[in-house]
Amino acid sequence: MIEIVFLGTSSMFPTEKRNHPSVLLRYEGDYMLFDCGEGTQRQLRIAKISPMKINRVFITHWHGDHALGLGGIIQSLSASGREKALEIYGPKGTKKYVSNIMNSFSFVKNFDIEVHEILPGKKICKVLEAEKYEIFSCATKHNIPTVAFSFCEKERRKINLDYVKKYGLVKHPILGRLQNGETITWKGHKITPAKGTVLVKGKKVTYIADTSYDRILEEISKESDLLICEASFANEHKELAEEYAHLTAETAANIAKNAKAKELILFHFSQRYGDDLEHLHNEAKKVFPNTKLANDFMRIVLN
Amino acid sequence: MIEIVFLGTSSMFPTEKRNHPSVLLRYEGDYMLFDCGEGTQRQLRIAKISPMKINRVFITHWHGDHALGLGGIIQSLSASGREKALEIYGPKGTKKYVSNIMNSFSFVKNFDIEVHEILPGKKICKVLEAEKYEIFSCATKHNIPTVAFSFCEKERRKINLDYVKKYGLVKHPILGRLQNGETITWKGHKITPAKGTVLVKGKKVTYIADTSYDRILEEISKESDLLICEASFANEHKELAEEYAHLTAETAANIAKNAKAKELILFHFSQRYGDDLEHLHNEAKKVFPNTKLANDFMRIVLN
Repeated sequence: MIEIVFLGTSSMFPTEKRNHPSVLLRYEGDYMLFDCGEGTQRQLRIAKISPMKINRVFITHWHGDHALGLGGIIQSLSASGREKALEIYGPKGTKKYVSNIMNSFSFVKNFDIEVHEILPGKKICKVLEAEKYEIFSCATKHNIPTVAFSFCEKERRKINLDYVKKYGLVKHPILGRLQNGETITWKGHKITPAKGTVLVKGKKVTYIADTSYDRILEEISKESDLLICEASFANEHKELAEEYAHLTAETAANIAKNAKAKELILFHFSQRYGDDLEHLHNEAKKVFPNTKLANDFMRIVLN
Repeated sequence: MIEIVFLGTSSMFPTEKRNHPSVLLRYEGDYMLFDCGEGTQRQLRIAKISPMKINRVFITHWHGDHALGLGGIIQSLSASGREKALEIYGPKGTKKYVSNIMNSFSFVKNFDIEVHEILPGKKICKVLEAEKYEIFSCATKHNIPTVAFSFCEKERRKINLDYVKKYGLVKHPILGRLQNGETITWKGHKITPAKGTVLVKGKKVTYIADTSYDRILEEISKESDLLICEASFANEHKELAEEYAHLTAETAANIAKNAKAKELILFHFSQRYGDDLEHLHNEAKKVFPNTKLANDFMRIVLN
């Protein structure tokens, strides 16, 4: 099960209802933050998620609104007796910024911070391979080094119940070995993984923060079950989107459509619209009907 | 008129209802922040106070919960076209911390930041003299360099209406000159400021954040109209207060009593009490009856 919690959905300026960007992706025991804007630790508290569970943070870029919550989380983890290392992934400059954050206030650090700088050039690159998932990244087109991320659950085997039933095999520990890809013998019959299991495609969640349009965004989003994408502006402010290297909701919808994504959730709205986001939503839905607007504390479960 | 707005009243860990410490003091055109915990810019937004109006920030010490909101405010001010300098006052180390904050994320700074380090030694020192008020500071007893602040409105002249009325002088621009301390002549009569005006004592507001008890706290709080004081712990956790160099509510009340303060407002409560602060409040009120507990967004006006 993949659970997504939107912790912050504003852009540079927070509003009464929206905090700075941060999205939590939980997959089994792994708690991953995508961006970590100022105030994220309080948003976690309100969402009743312990920051102690977070093991990985992926920073798209080092504009303050995407990263200024890191210091507070690091201080609170230290004060809570954290010992497990925290992994931070981000674009060029991440090592320097993390080091400066650690020297921007006084605290006693009790745990290691492992920083991984991502240098994708013009390609999509794999930045992490875990047992059951991989994280990919690519550069986006913003005014400082910025990356997007894609969480890809690996293909997994599922028992072909109809097939194993033929041999009277139902609910038995030996099925675990078959699911792990072993050939098993049951009552004198060999059952191979090729016949006794089916391969199920893993889920894919892509996270795109600040960027102008670029074809690579469609590549990294390709066939995503869920595409989380910035939509700072509505069409009425298309020029501002271009000037500040951001997306309109309509362009985000086009990316989702061309990538054949299943669902699009927009976030990172300019404060100028306040709660009045209906026109921005409609502009996206015209292009990609399965578009939702994120709110702070919205939760999505992908099964 | 002095207006105080509590922007954050928690201690290190924020809660659902309390953000990290920050208190705004507004006096005529001056907007001064005392401490600036993470999330202060959003609290300002919710309180409908423009960060652009802030001209001075007083940081008691550089634990993250008192200072990690500075970076976000600086970024937002820059993005909003701020040109006026921002003054930051804080204890030893402030120059280094401010410089590291500026390098802990990417932004374009458009305005000057003037940093003033306070080195009070064992005495109370004046850190700022404005036209109508002064700010004093002293070191407090915490585990890193920490200071307290006192805002003192200067004594001001008020027209002695009964006296000037004798000469038939009511509502006339010449009264402005008298109020400014000039001797005036009205219908052949000399009216001196000594007789034509009375001196009114200015208001005093003292802000004490993290500290153990020290006699100097009573000195700096002396005859404050309002003493804002940390009260991390209730008496049941007296040992923790000592271990972490904090005050109990009862000790804060003793400071207010010995300083002959008029009113005490407690803030900076340990998260462990949640909303259950009645016992802490009662322990303080037994010693100093005019004690209130601060909540986020509470406003106080001193006339």
